Amino acid sequence: MLKLILIISLLISVSDSTFAQQRKLVDYVNPLIGTAKMGHTFPGATVPFGAVQLSPDTDTIPYAVDGKYNGDVYKYCAGYQYNDPTIVGFSHTHFSGTGHSDLGDILVMPTQGKLQLNTGTAERPEEGYRSRYRHEMEVAKPNFYQVLLDDHNIKAELTTSTRVGLHRYTFPKSTESHIVIDLTSGIYNYDGKNVWTVLKVHNDSLITGYRQTNGWARTRTVYFAIRTSKPFKNYGSGQFDGNQVYRGFWRKFDQRNNFPDLAGHNLKLHLDFDTEEQESILMKVSLSPVSMTNAVANMEAEIPNWNFDQVVAEGQSAWENELKKIEVDMLSEEDMVNFYTSMYHASLMPTIYMDVNGEYKGLDQEVHQADGFINYTSFSLWDTFRAFHPLLNLINPSRNADMVSSMLAHYDQSVLKMLPIWSHYANDNWCMSGYHSVSVVVDAILKGVYKGDANAALQACVQTANTRRYEGIGAYIDLGYVPDDVSGTSVSNTLEYAYDDWCIAQLAKKLGNETLYQDFSKRAESWKNLYDSSIGFMRPKNSKGEFRPKFDVLETHNQGFIEGNTWNYSLYVPHQPVEMMNTMGGARKLESYLDSLFTMHLPDKYFEHTEDITREGIIGNYVHGNEPSHHVAYLYNITNSPWKTQEKVRTIINNQYHNGEAGLGGNDDCGQMSAWYIFSSLGFYPVAPGDDTYWIGSPLVKSATINLENGKQIQVNARNQSVANKYVRKVSWNGKEIKDFKLSYALLQNGGSLEFEMSSKPKR
Amino acid sequence: MLKLILIISLLISVSDSTFAQQRKLVDYVNPLIGTAKMGHTFPGATVPFGAVQLSPDTDTIPYAVDGKYNGDVYKYCAGYQYNDPTIVGFSHTHFSGTGHSDLGDILVMPTQGKLQLNTGTAERPEEGYRSRYRHEMEVAKPNFYQVLLDDHNIKAELTTSTRVGLHRYTFPKSTESHIVIDLTSGIYNYDGKNVWTVLKVHNDSLITGYRQTNGWARTRTVYFAIRTSKPFKNYGSGQFDGNQVYRGFWRKFDQRNNFPDLAGHNLKLHLDFDTEEQESILMKVSLSPVSMTNAVANMEAEIPNWNFDQVVAEGQSAWENELKKIEVDMLSEEDMVNFYTSMYHASLMPTIYMDVNGEYKGLDQEVHQADGFINYTSFSLWDTFRAFHPLLNLINPSRNADMVSSMLAHYDQSVLKMLPIWSHYANDNWCMSGYHSVSVVVDAILKGVYKGDANAALQACVQTANTRRYEGIGAYIDLGYVPDDVSGTSVSNTLEYAYDDWCIAQLAKKLGNETLYQDFSKRAESWKNLYDSSIGFMRPKNSKGEFRPKFDVLETHNQGFIEGNTWNYSLYVPHQPVEMMNTMGGARKLESYLDSLFTMHLPDKYFEHTEDITREGIIGNYVHGNEPSHHVAYLYNITNSPWKTQEKVRTIINNQYHNGEAGLGGNDDCGQMSAWYIFSSLGFYPVAPGDDTYWIGSPLVKSATINLENGKQIQVNARNQSVANKYVRKVSWNGKEIKDFKLSYALLQNGGSLEFEMSSKPKR
Repeated sequence: MLKLILIISLLISVSDSTFAQQRKLVDYVNPLIGTAKMGHTFPGATVPFGAVQLSPDTDTIPYAVDGKYNGDVYKYCAGYQYNDPTIVGFSHTHFSGTGHSDLGDILVMPTQGKLQLNTGTAERPEEGYRSRYRHEMEVAKPNFYQVLLDDHNIKAELTTSTRVGLHRYTFPKSTESHIVIDLTSGIYNYDGKNVWTVLKVHNDSLITGYRQTNGWARTRTVYFAIRTSKPFKNYGSGQFDGNQVYRGFWRKFDQRNNFPDLAGHNLKLHLDFDTEEQESILMKVSLSPVSMTNAVANMEAEIPNWNFDQVVAEGQSAWENELKKIEVDMLSEEDMVNFYTSMYHASLMPTIYMDVNGEYKGLDQEVHQADGFINYTSFSLWDTFRAFHPLLNLINPSRNADMVSSMLAHYDQSVLKMLPIWSHYANDNWCMSGYHSVSVVVDAILKGVYKGDANAALQACVQTANTRRYEGIGAYIDLGYVPDDVSGTSVSNTLEYAYDDWCIAQLAKKLGNETLYQDFSKRAESWKNLYDSSIGFMRPKNSKGEFRPKFDVLETHNQGFIEGNTWNYSLYVPHQPVEMMNTMGGARKLESYLDSLFTMHLPDKYFEHTEDITREGIIGNYVHGNEPSHHVAYLYNITNSPWKTQEKVRTIINNQYHNGEAGLGGNDDCGQMSAWYIFSSLGFYPVAPGDDTYWIGSPLVKSATINLENGKQIQVNARNQSVANKYVRKVSWNGKEIKDFKLSYALLQNGGSLEFEMSSKPKR
Repeated sequence: MLKLILIISLLISVSDSTFAQQRKLVDYVNPLIGTAKMGHTFPGATVPFGAVQLSPDTDTIPYAVDGKYNGDVYKYCAGYQYNDPTIVGFSHTHFSGTGHSDLGDILVMPTQGKLQLNTGTAERPEEGYRSRYRHEMEVAKPNFYQVLLDDHNIKAELTTSTRVGLHRYTFPKSTESHIVIDLTSGIYNYDGKNVWTVLKVHNDSLITGYRQTNGWARTRTVYFAIRTSKPFKNYGSGQFDGNQVYRGFWRKFDQRNNFPDLAGHNLKLHLDFDTEEQESILMKVSLSPVSMTNAVANMEAEIPNWNFDQVVAEGQSAWENELKKIEVDMLSEEDMVNFYTSMYHASLMPTIYMDVNGEYKGLDQEVHQADGFINYTSFSLWDTFRAFHPLLNLINPSRNADMVSSMLAHYDQSVLKMLPIWSHYANDNWCMSGYHSVSVVVDAILKGVYKGDANAALQACVQTANTRRYEGIGAYIDLGYVPDDVSGTSVSNTLEYAYDDWCIAQLAKKLGNETLYQDFSKRAESWKNLYDSSIGFMRPKNSKGEFRPKFDVLETHNQGFIEGNTWNYSLYVPHQPVEMMNTMGGARKLESYLDSLFTMHLPDKYFEHTEDITREGIIGNYVHGNEPSHHVAYLYNITNSPWKTQEKVRTIINNQYHNGEAGLGGNDDCGQMSAWYIFSSLGFYPVAPGDDTYWIGSPLVKSATINLENGKQIQVNARNQSVANKYVRKVSWNGKEIKDFKLSYALLQNGGSLEFEMSSKPKR
């Protein structure tokens, strides 16, 4: 007996030790990071770039009340706020880290006891179907979410495949167990957002339908299919559209109970069950952009059985493969968590928007067959062109090539003949400024990632950049800048257009189109037209060529910029940083400017009315929570003080990324904040996508292996790495010292060794 | 010179005489018949069973005002009322002869002068885009409509192919010529009926879009493409949806002028042109049930060029072929007009609902590929099962077979598992009573017209008839009748279910399913359960088996019947007329009942509040304007007084069908009224579809050739035919006298000669 126990304990310890050695990367991911305050991430279950994001919504407050914007809704961009006391239900679509929102489709909630079809309130959840919950009874892992719904005594577990959400609800014994399906619920909802909803109950365990909305996406339809593991004994719809004028239909049937053919503006459905103590009912919910038929096919293809644990495991295995693209060793557990949660957050969006049969809905609202690519949607390009897409070019090039194909398909389907600005679900919501899809397209072509028709892609970029009707482009072409009297964000528009135009010039050059190269190279210098040397900042200028007389260099609002003041935005010339520096008076002038930026005090009044900037998101007057400054810390490399870049990068990492629900200093912005972290942790950053140069910073990793898709590896090694040793004494590529602190994609993609020697002392 | 003139005048007279000899049948059609008062026909252009009915709408008043039904809307079921002084525009979809409505999609109006996007009023058309017109400047022919729009001095001409409307507008010289496209307009419209609308302007002459509505059809979307022969110089949308909350989109673009990508609840678009004096601008508008892409493909396939006259000619040639299926010689020009206008009206609906590539939208709101049939929609089955579909079985069997296939596809797509009741545009509007699609399906199978899977069809019929949830069917199955306390139309429901059940029994018998045969034969006798021998009428009975105590045998409303009083409805046992007669007390009793029905005075109060019955639509208490009595005149054949059938048939024809705008005594009901006329004019009528027997009446034709699809011909000859000679002295089939006044489909379909000898004296 003793012997047996010994063997068992040996086995246990062996297995423990093996586990420790083989600790999975998914175990480092904490999906709760960013779920409090401004991160706008969601804690629920999804697979990499999955079409379904099955996640709890803790409130679904209206976007507008009495026609006026309700500022509180901003908190709910991802549906979940960590400090909320109740869960309304689990819906199937969520953006990650956005600063505006939509989605939250097909909200499902298991309940028990008296049937209630309204949501109830956070204060009095018992008056509706929502429930209290406690974080100690909550588990959030990649592709797995679990919570106990206290009001109903139901354990809810969620997992997904790419296009299917799988729910497992464990009920108490009851003759009044329900699952509520609420098609009226949504994120950034408002009365009238639902354009139309349909529900068809095919039998006692299969439902199909769709939800058509008019929100941030103007015309968006999500088709779905729902299958339960146990037949419902009864079902019904408590709520009908009150707008129907012809009511002949109603007289013929009782539509409230067990009526299988429902349609209206605002539908809800309840499924009723008898349950035994601890009985689990599973439910699959599959989505399709195209049709209910496709939704059923997606379900059958991806989750043909009812093996919940297997679906969790398959999704986590997919996550492991995604995370493994960069294997790191870091100084602390917290760093490991931050790194792999960043990897996780940088692998959520854009999402796959295509059925298993290759069909998807295009921008033209028509059904298309994807021709040799996977179609993606939800491109938050103002954010993601900076580091997210460049990261994909490095570790996920085939996926990024498909994203470029998706953008070019969008262009082909655009009656405006424009590449996407901020596109989601067969729409463009036109959010933010610039036409940064050209940066993504150009960078992917120049890096050899996108292998399609480059001339057609160039044409799409040029056409987009020449859309005179869009946000001052016409005046920009004519005058060399967007005039203050034409656009409220004339300066940031001009700066971003100029960068994008430089990208187009690079592609034109590569393709030998000299005319376009000259034309767009000239446009790329437009930033010069708004630099006011009398004050040393970019400044709005009217159509007559006069700078705006009254101008506040600290203020973010109404000064000619979008999400940034001129202190931050004046540095936005990523494509011509040296020319910018010279224009600003040279290296010393720029260095002192940067020093001031990172150290000056920005009074509260300059950001307290800006919904996505808080004290946490800024360092001095440097705003990391918004993207225009993401390259700024690296600019010390051209002022001949790389050590300051190294210091600032470490400062930003320490300051802005934490393991905790409030661990992000601002919106994660669809992975851009995370991609900045990943690059910077590895010790380099793509200052100007379209150029194949990375600028060296200060690595946070002790070591890293970047496993490239072509089978090659990049080894990153930081000798003498420590919290204090944040300065780079020496950096080498394959043994050859890098003196200019620059690395190229061309070198990296062939694999090799990037060797840092770290030190606590700056190398001045 | 004299010689030349002589030759010319000879030529003219020759050509005149040739024309007279070769007078085309289309020239007898007067599409204006039924456009005044209750006919509810439309005068516009269409081809046989065409998907496009391009016709003027003279008003588009709302279905409901302040949530209350607006009775005046009833006049506008087909969009046009002959006595109206103005035309609002030309829309592309119209029902013919219905008593409830929908459609009126994509209203187009050419205007000149100041741009106006509101409709204006009939009294003050100059305050909007509508226009006065005069009938003397109006021409309505098969597939051609022309009118002068007085307010704009624009000649409008319309023609169509199956899926495309072709407009030709001849403008005066103007720099302010416009074409308004109003997606907010519709028939039986109301605020909120438009669920969503989309408009995409692809270039200066191509527009696509769709209109999604919630009306009589709950969820209906019409996709379209529009191409102009001349590029518009400018375009714009005057009206936006005011419900959009997220307005980021608006800030980016000027959406009112030349903005090509529009969507909202209520869109309008104006196209602007410079025109020379008498300049014609043509416009194609194609429709699709599936997509904008398909609409473009339909247009390119059907009308690739701009040859207006050719499109008119092709459509008229299609009409000529349709009309030629029965070639008649009649006593008067008016009879010829009535006959061929009836043929015309009986060839408008159901309409083709399928793209040139075979795709259509199914009842399940999904896109389907028609598998070996042409898909049709708009089945007004309570009307059309009686004579319209039987007429198709005789002269258009392959079309009727496709209609049966369409109904069975509808069944397959039905989550309720029911054949259509009153279906249109991928919906069932559930109008009227019974499940008469089973009559159409059974009749087509038993006559050998539908050659598909008869057992599957039987299954669909049985499943439909066993839908317990629908209009008292459950109680009907349990009790043998629909109880008065379950349905407000319990008696008519019971009588119609009994007939339909008899049809099912006949099919079951044919297929050797003895159980179903017995079961449904028993159900077919359910009419007996509601016959109250104490009063000699059918009468509502409650669940306890008690007849309703207070009962008005003349009243139509709230007495247990739909669109008929018990005087008319008590005779509705078409499948068992002899048993009915015996139950009612025998031949003499029935004859006296019929005599009374046709001669008694029905006071105004019994129909003045019934919207579709007027004094014109009744003879005594016999209501021809509604369908339940359509077989009644033929019942004298079993009271041994066929001469009374002959007399009544002639009376009804003379009384109810005239060449004139108000020429129809009631709604044409999608061709049922016309089909009654056609059969009766030929001298026989299908009293009980499902039985292959026709009952002999009194022919109106002098002679007729029925050209069967199988190449055979039926010659009908009425010797001594005259207005006075309305009695049949003798009738023979292929020389053999028909003594029982019955003919069979089995005989007719082999071709042959039906010989009548007419007389002014009844043969008693």
